[in-house]
Amino acid sequence: MASGSWEEFFAVHLPPTDFEDNRSLLKEFCERHDQYGNKIVLVTSGGTTVPLEHNTVRFVDNFSAGTRGAASAEYFLEHGYAVIFMHRQKSLEPFTRNFTGQKLFDMLDLQDRGPNTTITVKQDSVFVLAPVLQRYQAAHAAGALLHVAFTSVSEYFWLLRAACELLARTGPRALLYLAAAVSDFYVPKDRVPTHKMQSASGPPVIQLHLVPKMLAPLVNLWVPEAYVVSFKLETDENLLIPKARAALEKYKHKMVVANMLQTRHQRVILVTPDANQEIVLSREEVHAGIDIEGVIVSDIVRAHGAHMGCGAPPSCARSPR
Amino acid sequence: MASGSWEEFFAVHLPPTDFEDNRSLLKEFCERHDQYGNKIVLVTSGGTTVPLEHNTVRFVDNFSAGTRGAASAEYFLEHGYAVIFMHRQKSLEPFTRNFTGQKLFDMLDLQDRGPNTTITVKQDSVFVLAPVLQRYQAAHAAGALLHVAFTSVSEYFWLLRAACELLARTGPRALLYLAAAVSDFYVPKDRVPTHKMQSASGPPVIQLHLVPKMLAPLVNLWVPEAYVVSFKLETDENLLIPKARAALEKYKHKMVVANMLQTRHQRVILVTPDANQEIVLSREEVHAGIDIEGVIVSDIVRAHGAHMGCGAPPSCARSPR
Repeated sequence: MASGSWEEFFAVHLPPTDFEDNRSLLKEFCERHDQYGNKIVLVTSGGTTVPLEHNTVRFVDNFSAGTRGAASAEYFLEHGYAVIFMHRQKSLEPFTRNFTGQKLFDMLDLQDRGPNTTITVKQDSVFVLAPVLQRYQAAHAAGALLHVAFTSVSEYFWLLRAACELLARTGPRALLYLAAAVSDFYVPKDRVPTHKMQSASGPPVIQLHLVPKMLAPLVNLWVPEAYVVSFKLETDENLLIPKARAALEKYKHKMVVANMLQTRHQRVILVTPDANQEIVLSREEVHAGIDIEGVIVSDIVRAHGAHMGCGAPPSCARSPR
Repeated sequence: MASGSWEEFFAVHLPPTDFEDNRSLLKEFCERHDQYGNKIVLVTSGGTTVPLEHNTVRFVDNFSAGTRGAASAEYFLEHGYAVIFMHRQKSLEPFTRNFTGQKLFDMLDLQDRGPNTTITVKQDSVFVLAPVLQRYQAAHAAGALLHVAFTSVSEYFWLLRAACELLARTGPRALLYLAAAVSDFYVPKDRVPTHKMQSASGPPVIQLHLVPKMLAPLVNLWVPEAYVVSFKLETDENLLIPKARAALEKYKHKMVVANMLQTRHQRVILVTPDANQEIVLSREEVHAGIDIEGVIVSDIVRAHGAHMGCGAPPSCARSPR
């Protein structure tokens, strides 16, 4: 079954209720950083849901804790980017990603002195927490990090398009790092039942439909000058590179980060029109807690620099002489 | 289509890899508290997933942040119960539920003094955090709270049965508070594809099957003397009480906590064989941040006390003369 067009998708699915608020935040952020001539990266992160009921009790979800996106956002900040972190509600976030509520509670010492009670971080936890907290506070003080959250696939698309339209004026200084695990399938709004599906009426059959490929209008219409990186996650190694390369050829964007579900924290392949560049962490690096995202982001920042160096079209497409 | 039997479910779905570790933790916890004559409550919390692929990229999920279960666990601790908190991985947990990583980060002050760096909680946050931290530390120091986590519906059932079998010896002092949002439907193991579903082969149709009703063996075989409370969440008010009452009649357990998705934080109905008892928070109580779970748990603790007061069978079933 063919997927509907992207125009149709936006016509059928209304914007989320908090859409205008988020759009205002995005607008202020993009305009401020564009004015300073900053590079701006849009990092998308986490999985999208596909509601199976209007009063949503059940939904189809995509596996993603948001590790890749949250870690990458930190490294982009280190490289001086302004970061729009567009993430699944409750997925991992930059800086706090390694500190759950319980982990932080266990780091705290309570000195109960009535009205003069104090709470301090235990000395042996300070050296772990301090550098992360410092970077967190610096990013927020500089206004360099904006969080916007989505849950369903339609919320994601509305936010994505809005961010792109605002980033268009940033031209080649905009970078899109589309790490979110976006559903390929959905249930069109008019096929979704209003109430919770009842088990008494027998087990339901869910007919999924293809989600339109938003990368096509994104690359061609919304942010034509940006450096666009998409992600490809597979579980079958044989499909990985062919599918990454097919996506590049189809959408004409700049790079696909290809990775296998099972090894995604140790190995990725940066697929560009000219090359497949493999990044692999050694066992020692993995044990030392090195994030592969640090390496991925460094390489992409370099490629983005070259893209910007090409300047405004049409100088770039020419030979260097 | 009829659901398979619960025996069949356990025969087809192997135990999760960390099952024996969790079983050992449960065993130590139950035996220790049983020995002291403590009341033990099993609180289940959060939604279960139904994997759609063996290398799970996609799954069907049930809406549940775990608010109800996490809050209730705190109140059971206040009432002197030992609490097994069996929860969906990454769902809300007792005490930390109101403090995400980011919220805690924003409460922290960093005094950067090189090797003598300290991190303290800001004075205006201490009064919010201190009472919660105090109760958290007390519960852990007393060994009164055990966390065990599940993700898929089959992990949930394996843990549930193991906990029940261990709680059986606690007799009527055991309380089951089954607040988890367990899937009614699943895809049997032999129908699940190995690799990620490919959109190129067209949108998939997902044929769901009914999950066997575990409440039947739970009440009759696994913990016949325990006080068992189940939950019913609906989106259609007309179905709420009839379905709660039908469940009580079918499974012969003690209580159904019935609630509507839209109003579940302000209103529930405790449905017992004899009565429907409505609990409603006033608007002022909701604004003051009162947890409805405090009221629910108080009422259930009272009912559980009466159940225990009946003593070991057969004294209870007789008239008070």
